Amino acid sequence: MATIFSETLHKGYGQHMEVAGDMLVNQRSEFQHIQIFDTEALGRVMTLDGVVQITERDEASYSEMLSHLPMIEHGAVKRVMIVGGGDGAIAEECLKHPGVEVDMCEIDGQVVQACKQHFAHVNKGAFDDPRFHLHIEDAFEFLKSAEAEGRYDLIIADRPDPIGPAQVLFATEFYELLKRALSDRGIAVFQNGCPFFQKDELAETMKQLRGVFPHAGTYLTVTPTYIGGFMTLTWASRGTDLGTLPQDEVARRIDAIGLATDHYNAALHKAAFALPTWIARLAG
Amino acid sequence: MATIFSETLHKGYGQHMEVAGDMLVNQRSEFQHIQIFDTEALGRVMTLDGVVQITERDEASYSEMLSHLPMIEHGAVKRVMIVGGGDGAIAEECLKHPGVEVDMCEIDGQVVQACKQHFAHVNKGAFDDPRFHLHIEDAFEFLKSAEAEGRYDLIIADRPDPIGPAQVLFATEFYELLKRALSDRGIAVFQNGCPFFQKDELAETMKQLRGVFPHAGTYLTVTPTYIGGFMTLTWASRGTDLGTLPQDEVARRIDAIGLATDHYNAALHKAAFALPTWIARLAG
Repeated sequence: MATIFSETLHKGYGQHMEVAGDMLVNQRSEFQHIQIFDTEALGRVMTLDGVVQITERDEASYSEMLSHLPMIEHGAVKRVMIVGGGDGAIAEECLKHPGVEVDMCEIDGQVVQACKQHFAHVNKGAFDDPRFHLHIEDAFEFLKSAEAEGRYDLIIADRPDPIGPAQVLFATEFYELLKRALSDRGIAVFQNGCPFFQKDELAETMKQLRGVFPHAGTYLTVTPTYIGGFMTLTWASRGTDLGTLPQDEVARRIDAIGLATDHYNAALHKAAFALPTWIARLAG
Repeated sequence: MATIFSETLHKGYGQHMEVAGDMLVNQRSEFQHIQIFDTEALGRVMTLDGVVQITERDEASYSEMLSHLPMIEHGAVKRVMIVGGGDGAIAEECLKHPGVEVDMCEIDGQVVQACKQHFAHVNKGAFDDPRFHLHIEDAFEFLKSAEAEGRYDLIIADRPDPIGPAQVLFATEFYELLKRALSDRGIAVFQNGCPFFQKDELAETMKQLRGVFPHAGTYLTVTPTYIGGFMTLTWASRGTDLGTLPQDEVARRIDAIGLATDHYNAALHKAAFALPTWIARLAG
């Protein structure tokens, strides 16, 4: 009898997958229930509290779009902060850009330990890169420090869904702290859910971001195992509008650093800002 | 105890949903097992042989992208043929364009009967429109007729996955018959699966289409309950390249007919041709 993992994120609807072999990780940390297992359909999978966080087969569509798109658009990102991101997939993408330093602030050290071991083929040595700095710490405390003020050209909020403790990462106070930590042309980007199932999450976040930042908006990606079709990646900045760079300049910047990707490219960079009518209505 | 519908399209991975109330339709036709039921998550749902065909909540992302995009791009579609499409959702979209006649060739009359009754809020009277002509017939026989030759400006293949009897709708002979039935600037568009789970389907179809037509390519949509993220909508034509119309002209044509949509718009029309790197590799 095969073991089936069945996700319970949404009411009355979900995805299920067949687990191949034994659970590789099945432990409770101080913060959450961490499970890592293999599947034939999706490769290796990590879930936290029963919700899919990353699969080997589709992580590129998430981590590349949260990192390269704002980095290429900004054009001169030197300091990146990642909120969460314990699997190391986004850090690995950021470190493809020359001259970048990455601070990752992940609250759960056990997630990092598990992913160092079991997702090494995804994070590919990012944790050992001298330009990478790991902080096992609450992001609020980290952001409140004197050193964080005005420090980051890019902050990537690889936040889970707003359930339980992660709700604070959807609070206005969090956005205020991010604004303080951004440099003059700095950009913050946010995992913002799949509006097909989580429409209030998008409308509410856009209202909050517009209250805190002079510039805010949303772009899209599609990661099959974040079920619900289009996922919104919201953004906010002190002084740069995202999505204005011409496609040929996007392509030139990608070529200039020899960026190799599985999902992201110049055409997709521009296309990500085109919202279906029903999502545009929600974003306001 | 709630009734759960669990889809079994892909090996080791699937979606499941809670059925609200009793099955509205649960019958076997000459061709397939037809089920229609309500869900809280997705509204009304129809499945054929256990595979989701349409849900009330996300059908626009499929039916609008298969109809309006090629019609707007062509600019003068007068005669449309729909292969399959028994739920009437695509026909309803096509009939929003003035001066259009639609032939629908659906093999299973019981699907049409069930959807007339249970998806009336989706097909909205399309079956009773004097410009609409229903043919309960095998599409191959219909296409071979003398009247079909050179008749259609647009043929929409609302085909299911290539399993069982539907395999003939992925055969080179089918593409040859469509080419014969198209007018000089005519376009054919095809449901071509979600390459995340069905990558051979895209690569194989592109090879076949390029062997038959002078122009072929693919664009994308995202329909959450066609699980697997991006869905490819392939296209082929005798004399028109899709995706070349400037966005302002797309917008002008949409405005000119006062087209009201939930998903499709001019920006999305252009964006649909931007393929993620991994899909571009499969499309060749």
